[in-house]
Amino acid sequence: MTQSQGETKIQPTTDNAVKNFTWLRRGVSEIFPEQVHSDDPLENLEKRLTDTHRPLRVKLGIDPTSPDIHLGHSIPYRKLRAFQDAGHTAVLIIGDFTAKIGDPTGKSEVRRQLSDEIVAQNAKTYLNQLRPILDFDTPGRLEVRYNSEWLSKLDLAKILELLSTMTVGQMLAKEGFAERYAQENPIYLHEFLYPIMQGYDSVAVEADVELGGTDQKFNIAVGRDLQRHFGFPPQFGVLMPILIGTDGTQKMSKSLGNYIGLSDDPLTMYSKLEKIPDHLLEQYFELLTDLPLDVLPENPRDRQKLLALNIVAQFHGQEAAAKAQQTAMSLVQGATTDTSAVPEFSLSQVEFPAKLFYILSASKLCKSSSDARRQIQGGAVRLNSDRVTQLDLAFEKPEQLYEKVLQVGKNKFVRLVP
Amino acid sequence: MTQSQGETKIQPTTDNAVKNFTWLRRGVSEIFPEQVHSDDPLENLEKRLTDTHRPLRVKLGIDPTSPDIHLGHSIPYRKLRAFQDAGHTAVLIIGDFTAKIGDPTGKSEVRRQLSDEIVAQNAKTYLNQLRPILDFDTPGRLEVRYNSEWLSKLDLAKILELLSTMTVGQMLAKEGFAERYAQENPIYLHEFLYPIMQGYDSVAVEADVELGGTDQKFNIAVGRDLQRHFGFPPQFGVLMPILIGTDGTQKMSKSLGNYIGLSDDPLTMYSKLEKIPDHLLEQYFELLTDLPLDVLPENPRDRQKLLALNIVAQFHGQEAAAKAQQTAMSLVQGATTDTSAVPEFSLSQVEFPAKLFYILSASKLCKSSSDARRQIQGGAVRLNSDRVTQLDLAFEKPEQLYEKVLQVGKNKFVRLVP
Repeated sequence: MTQSQGETKIQPTTDNAVKNFTWLRRGVSEIFPEQVHSDDPLENLEKRLTDTHRPLRVKLGIDPTSPDIHLGHSIPYRKLRAFQDAGHTAVLIIGDFTAKIGDPTGKSEVRRQLSDEIVAQNAKTYLNQLRPILDFDTPGRLEVRYNSEWLSKLDLAKILELLSTMTVGQMLAKEGFAERYAQENPIYLHEFLYPIMQGYDSVAVEADVELGGTDQKFNIAVGRDLQRHFGFPPQFGVLMPILIGTDGTQKMSKSLGNYIGLSDDPLTMYSKLEKIPDHLLEQYFELLTDLPLDVLPENPRDRQKLLALNIVAQFHGQEAAAKAQQTAMSLVQGATTDTSAVPEFSLSQVEFPAKLFYILSASKLCKSSSDARRQIQGGAVRLNSDRVTQLDLAFEKPEQLYEKVLQVGKNKFVRLVP
Repeated sequence: MTQSQGETKIQPTTDNAVKNFTWLRRGVSEIFPEQVHSDDPLENLEKRLTDTHRPLRVKLGIDPTSPDIHLGHSIPYRKLRAFQDAGHTAVLIIGDFTAKIGDPTGKSEVRRQLSDEIVAQNAKTYLNQLRPILDFDTPGRLEVRYNSEWLSKLDLAKILELLSTMTVGQMLAKEGFAERYAQENPIYLHEFLYPIMQGYDSVAVEADVELGGTDQKFNIAVGRDLQRHFGFPPQFGVLMPILIGTDGTQKMSKSLGNYIGLSDDPLTMYSKLEKIPDHLLEQYFELLTDLPLDVLPENPRDRQKLLALNIVAQFHGQEAAAKAQQTAMSLVQGATTDTSAVPEFSLSQVEFPAKLFYILSASKLCKSSSDARRQIQGGAVRLNSDRVTQLDLAFEKPEQLYEKVLQVGKNKFVRLVP
């Protein structure tokens, strides 16, 4: 399946929006500290933005252990782009240090040790997926840093100093630790160092603002404490909500299967987005588009289409989005008039004669041949919109399948080509 | 006041004692682990001592922030000497690393930052006081190490590994931390590193045994865990009791004033020891002498004298001890026949005419002139055994005082000289 790597950028916010800070506050859960009536640029982010006569440094951390990102991850990057468009510097920090160390207890799957090469490859994959969101081109708007640059140089004396800025009580009050301690689940001492390392990143890059999900408040606050300790003005925290996934109930996550990947092809992305549950529509518009919220279509079905079109256009361009919309409509209606937006799968990879369930597996529409047989049995498989019922359906020659669309469920399609 | 730096060594234990391990067990509170019926040299220290075909490495840590040591501190060093005499290697670790860092919170007086020069000077003073106790001369019996050698080389990756061997729960169960956490007194995160640093010292020097007071059990156990983690056989802990001071109730401590310093002159040391309360006599004999406990004199007064004579002899030699005993007896009896053992104070440091309370302060017999006046008022001051009652007693010329003994309370004397 080929995936187009769109280069279209999201629309920059208007000058007016920059001036009245709608770009800053849209979709934000919390800004801290926030003394709205203060004139002190240490207490009021709007003052810091207007009174600082240099671009602010806006930090966002990247974990290079999980290179595939989805729309949920994209939310703080969209805010970062808004800061870039207002003239500020995005400082992306690739957390290569801990990725290369892993978890010394060997108990965390997420923190397994990765080689330099894999970390670099993951970081590259990650950054590529961000190309449609961030401004990579305007000089001074983007800085990419690897935190091993400063963390690998810390010695015991400095680490004692960093640790001395916090108490055990503060650390144990942190969400996550508190419950584990109460339930007598072991918390290993080195885990206390992770928030401190993230906080020290803010010192090292002299961050003015750190962006993150609402679950990052503690870590961002640790950064503030450490900056104060080292004599820097403490950063502001700008917290964004956690996105609910396509199932409408749980947070978007690859492992739950309720996600829309940034590298999904246009048709897959469109098909998932046009089925977003009604009660999530407003949040999706607010967090994932720049459309004004007061002029959205009344009809929920029209809203879904507008949302899908807008988001697919951000990642793949207007034309691809329009095409995906057409294809999705024709597939749903059982027509096959225009299938050119459907991702291709080359049958040259398959040995003929071939069973259909094998093709379903080889094309990754199903996880395995046995999964494919289950899907056929369940009636989820269609060939050019005709439901397939024969479990052992086989084809003598690839030519019999050329230009046909093979479909599993509502969102997964491939167009079979030579 | 001059202080003789005695070079006399304590008596080595006999061959027979070495064989039946009376030297090992005398005055010991706890050995751990102790599987007395085990043949495994990892569980039974006697097996380790007999089955290991090399000298064992016996670790003891020195804190170079407090160079003045007293008899309470000497107890584990006496045990260390017993290990030396049984053919093993004493490994003294000077904790210069933390002394040079200090406490980053600046809250601990003990952990204030010290320069290289002061640390070196303190270590030298400390080691000099140990000369009468330890075997400094037999090749292979003493190794002095500075822990900055390995601690200053630790990087963040290694520190994460060290920290990952312990949980927050284990650390908070430690005496001291537990109460502070319960009382919501802040525990700073870097404090968790101190037991781990001490434990890592055991890894670095490949200790077979670590000696310490009973308050060191946790730290010695951390050393065992870290040695196991790095693939070394874990050390044994040999714990010694905490010595009660001359007041008979509280642990010996300089700040409580109930101490006997290793660098006290023979008369001061003798005078303090011959007044040790009866209920402490047995513990003092057991911990501070090698005398057999079953043949001690019946009469408590004779026991006190024997104890005082034996301990003074360890630090200042037999002759000086005998002389101190004679002087002490003549002073107590009001005679001044032989005052040559009384430390001298040169009146050349005092401007005449001079008040007696000023001389008391200048000679350090009293803390200050006002303290001296209080002592005179309280009837504690004697000149050649005559009680001084006149608060403003003054002398025109120093010659009036030459060779007289000035005394405060029962233990403090100086002989006034030109």
